[in-house]
Amino acid sequence: MYRTHTCGELRLTDSGKTVRLSGWVQTVRDFGSMTFIDLRDRYGITQLVFSMETDAPLCEQARKLGREFVIQAEGLVRERSAKNLNRETGDIEIEVQSMQVLNASKVPPFTIEDDTDGGDDLRMKYRYLDLRRTPVQRNILFRSQLSLEVRKYLNEKRFVEVETPFLIKSTPEGARDFVVPSRMNPGQFYALPQSPQTFKQILMVAGYDRYFQIVKCFRDEDLRADRQPEFTQIDCEMAFVTREDILQTFEGLTRHLFRETLGLDLPEFPRMSYDDALRLYGSDKPDLRFDMAFTPLTDLAQGKGFGVFDSAELVVGINAQGQAGYTRKQIDELTEWVKRPQIGAKGLVYVRFGEDGALKSSVDKFFSETDLSAWADRMGAKPGDLMLILAGEEEKTRKQLSELRLEMGRRMGLMTPGDFKPLWVLDFPLLEWDEDTQRFYAMHHPFTSPKPDDIERMASNDRTMLKNLRADAYDLVINGVEIGGGSIRIHNRALQEKNFKLLGFTQEEAERQFGFLLGAFEYGAPPHGGIAFGFDRLCSVLNGQNSIRDFIAFPKNNMGRDMMIDAPSGNRRGSIGGVAA
Amino acid sequence: MYRTHTCGELRLTDSGKTVRLSGWVQTVRDFGSMTFIDLRDRYGITQLVFSMETDAPLCEQARKLGREFVIQAEGLVRERSAKNLNRETGDIEIEVQSMQVLNASKVPPFTIEDDTDGGDDLRMKYRYLDLRRTPVQRNILFRSQLSLEVRKYLNEKRFVEVETPFLIKSTPEGARDFVVPSRMNPGQFYALPQSPQTFKQILMVAGYDRYFQIVKCFRDEDLRADRQPEFTQIDCEMAFVTREDILQTFEGLTRHLFRETLGLDLPEFPRMSYDDALRLYGSDKPDLRFDMAFTPLTDLAQGKGFGVFDSAELVVGINAQGQAGYTRKQIDELTEWVKRPQIGAKGLVYVRFGEDGALKSSVDKFFSETDLSAWADRMGAKPGDLMLILAGEEEKTRKQLSELRLEMGRRMGLMTPGDFKPLWVLDFPLLEWDEDTQRFYAMHHPFTSPKPDDIERMASNDRTMLKNLRADAYDLVINGVEIGGGSIRIHNRALQEKNFKLLGFTQEEAERQFGFLLGAFEYGAPPHGGIAFGFDRLCSVLNGQNSIRDFIAFPKNNMGRDMMIDAPSGNRRGSIGGVAA
Repeated sequence: MYRTHTCGELRLTDSGKTVRLSGWVQTVRDFGSMTFIDLRDRYGITQLVFSMETDAPLCEQARKLGREFVIQAEGLVRERSAKNLNRETGDIEIEVQSMQVLNASKVPPFTIEDDTDGGDDLRMKYRYLDLRRTPVQRNILFRSQLSLEVRKYLNEKRFVEVETPFLIKSTPEGARDFVVPSRMNPGQFYALPQSPQTFKQILMVAGYDRYFQIVKCFRDEDLRADRQPEFTQIDCEMAFVTREDILQTFEGLTRHLFRETLGLDLPEFPRMSYDDALRLYGSDKPDLRFDMAFTPLTDLAQGKGFGVFDSAELVVGINAQGQAGYTRKQIDELTEWVKRPQIGAKGLVYVRFGEDGALKSSVDKFFSETDLSAWADRMGAKPGDLMLILAGEEEKTRKQLSELRLEMGRRMGLMTPGDFKPLWVLDFPLLEWDEDTQRFYAMHHPFTSPKPDDIERMASNDRTMLKNLRADAYDLVINGVEIGGGSIRIHNRALQEKNFKLLGFTQEEAERQFGFLLGAFEYGAPPHGGIAFGFDRLCSVLNGQNSIRDFIAFPKNNMGRDMMIDAPSGNRRGSIGGVAA
Repeated sequence: MYRTHTCGELRLTDSGKTVRLSGWVQTVRDFGSMTFIDLRDRYGITQLVFSMETDAPLCEQARKLGREFVIQAEGLVRERSAKNLNRETGDIEIEVQSMQVLNASKVPPFTIEDDTDGGDDLRMKYRYLDLRRTPVQRNILFRSQLSLEVRKYLNEKRFVEVETPFLIKSTPEGARDFVVPSRMNPGQFYALPQSPQTFKQILMVAGYDRYFQIVKCFRDEDLRADRQPEFTQIDCEMAFVTREDILQTFEGLTRHLFRETLGLDLPEFPRMSYDDALRLYGSDKPDLRFDMAFTPLTDLAQGKGFGVFDSAELVVGINAQGQAGYTRKQIDELTEWVKRPQIGAKGLVYVRFGEDGALKSSVDKFFSETDLSAWADRMGAKPGDLMLILAGEEEKTRKQLSELRLEMGRRMGLMTPGDFKPLWVLDFPLLEWDEDTQRFYAMHHPFTSPKPDDIERMASNDRTMLKNLRADAYDLVINGVEIGGGSIRIHNRALQEKNFKLLGFTQEEAERQFGFLLGAFEYGAPPHGGIAFGFDRLCSVLNGQNSIRDFIAFPKNNMGRDMMIDAPSGNRRGSIGGVAA
């Protein structure tokens, strides 16, 4: 037996017990006559004491231990004279009577501390050492707890966890499939799922009523800053439900998770249409930790001789409360910020509402104080505020102003840690027009149902009318991050065929790819809908962190590469030579 | 809202309530003035009643409904005059006031009944219909419950669920990897894991102490009768443990599962060494629902002039109690059975111990009644028994007799449904010699630790001595089926390198494939060990069934093919054309 207790377990009430602990040497402090070792495991740290007086050879041995050595020590629990109040075991220490080195350790290439000196690449290569650091370990343990709570809630609600296959056929969900050659069927390929979408719908047709799965999904695409080629979804589907049933169920799940993991009781989630989200915040995932909503100014701003505004499709502004103190230099810097290629604005107009009530703008040449005053009125600006205005092509301008709004939120400290503002965004468009390929794509996926009132208009050939079709689709957004999305699905063969047609599928293509689903719809498919949460993302948002990578035990880098095991590798057959192939 | 209640929920106490139900039409029974519909969902069946007297048009509509139509019905709960005691809702029925067809259904290609008329291929193709049948649904729901109970127990024991990656590097575990080309790293490949073995060891090095995962694994090999290219493991690892800790923990898990899912309290699991298992039952996974252990007879049987025995390496028998009544014809048939190529015995010797005490054998020419009496003594045979004896090369003969023992168990009805006999098989050989390739393979896998006493002998060059090395490995067997296996792992770089060398790895191969693990062992690797349960298999064994396929929602056939979605397919890029690529 390697241990009678863990390193996080012993308390004052254990004094006098003979115990055995195993763990890692966190620190060795040598005071000549006494040596102290902090022994660490997943559960905590316990102080070991060695004394030259009682056992000189043992004490000498302890002195020589290096960081990260694995040892086993036996001794007597006793009360500490100098207690450590920051540590749960801080009332006691172990007077060591015998000790054994279970394994030595080389000096780690970076320090195993909360703030490490190791760079990204080094920590990825020695992931087993990085995983020992408390902040990383806390994340991984949090993830485990979160998945447990997800399962508790969904089981309580009678969801069945069903495993869907990983070796499937290619599905078209807006990104590329990883393909897997089949040895038993030469020349043929499986694909790894981008999501279990069609399978969960099949499970509804099969009568399973409520399905969930915490499941890996795969996307073979260029990795953006915070994407992984394999990622985890909480994937859910329900039969005989309306949108309202789904929103209630998964608002309930989200509330449960916040309560059980963070001890936070969230109020009812507000809802906003996709159109309103774009109109008010320029984004389908607005961060509602602060308002700073958009105010349209086109009508007020045009016709005064300022060419930039006059030629713009949209003039729109935000009001940064209490920021009238921005200096000329700060405003110039902000102007440069919006002109960066990542944002792409042509320029920035400001109106400073002085504490004295004076209105001062960068376009004073074209607009009188009365004009500016009308803008301020509409924007609800008060003395001391700073109005920021962008103009141009409508869609682009909204996006740019959305970025500026978020940047101002950051600069003004409005993204408070520990503040969570969830939001349901509803009624997404069904279709998205792509100028390059001159065709429609599914905004969500091809199985999303239009809103019942819009079904008739699907027969139209008018592009604008088709663009305005609304889907029974919804996203859950928290603090400006999309953590879940779903929809009511089509459950009728004719409607599904119509949708495929709008998406440019020939009948043969639809049949070849989704014949099984179209077929299933003919044998008593119930109305159904569902949602999928990005589990990695959910972990990071709940912890107020930006990177999902920190919540994945073995993440890949931006090249899709596992630096520790060195995969992928060119040596396709090499590994098979060595042992039983 | 599609329903106020499920079809399994209403009781007599709900009488008088107006309710709304949704579900599938199981049967329509038309009695002229009245029509009864059994409405089905996952939760049960509720009887709907329509009467010509109260609402003729509605009743007419109900009559026309086909099987598997999806409907929604609203009506009044009332007590049934003729109660159905076999059904939880059998006390009530719904007097339907309004009804809506939510979706029609074609006539299913096979009946959705417990005993269906559908063949295997048809049921695989229309898996969504097969999944509606009660026995299949019961299996899938059982699997979900079992995974829940696994998680409950392991969480209680402070195991952390950690997701390990699916896109990894090839690992050598006795079967072929599925490879996955990387688009971002042209010419390079990932592999799908055959198990998360090295990752769970890395997690132990990283200090996670107790890990588990219910996880898909992959093997690209010819599929035997009951193998799947993707299968699910309960994968576990623990640090600072001896074999005893692991056996206790996972015996505890197994007991917990039997208790919670079947209501069965299993007694302490017996243990047997690999050597004893082979000696006594000719198998490393003996079915202990009955004994019929082997009795060696070589010394007694040789030197009496019977060439077959005299030239045999081993003469060995089993005693089939109470089977002396076997006729000549039955014995001939049994002889043919053991001579089939799948078994491969050259012949079968029997000794019939008559109720009158007379001994009669097929080799009376060579053996006196005194000889046969000595055999019977050693075998513990009594009047009325039938002794069955095989002879030949030792290893083959044991295997043949093992098959015969199982066959006799089946014929004698000794494999009682509901009887569960778990067994730990311990001390497997470390290495297996392969005559064809003239080299050693790891019996378990290359990370398995030899028993401490055997480490020194690993330096030997003597093949027999190496063959006799024992590993700290164990299997959990229930009713003759291996449901789990594991080992204490090597946690020392030098020992791991020595083991790789015995397995024919060059130093370069070892470094290229497992450099990260060898490296990890140098930074404070704790002693550790683990186990993996075949989850599909566990489901089937707990239900006394033989096929794992019945416990997988979307299984593949013997060609690794998903008949429903028709994968794999040759059309590698085809699916991408249709929608947003």
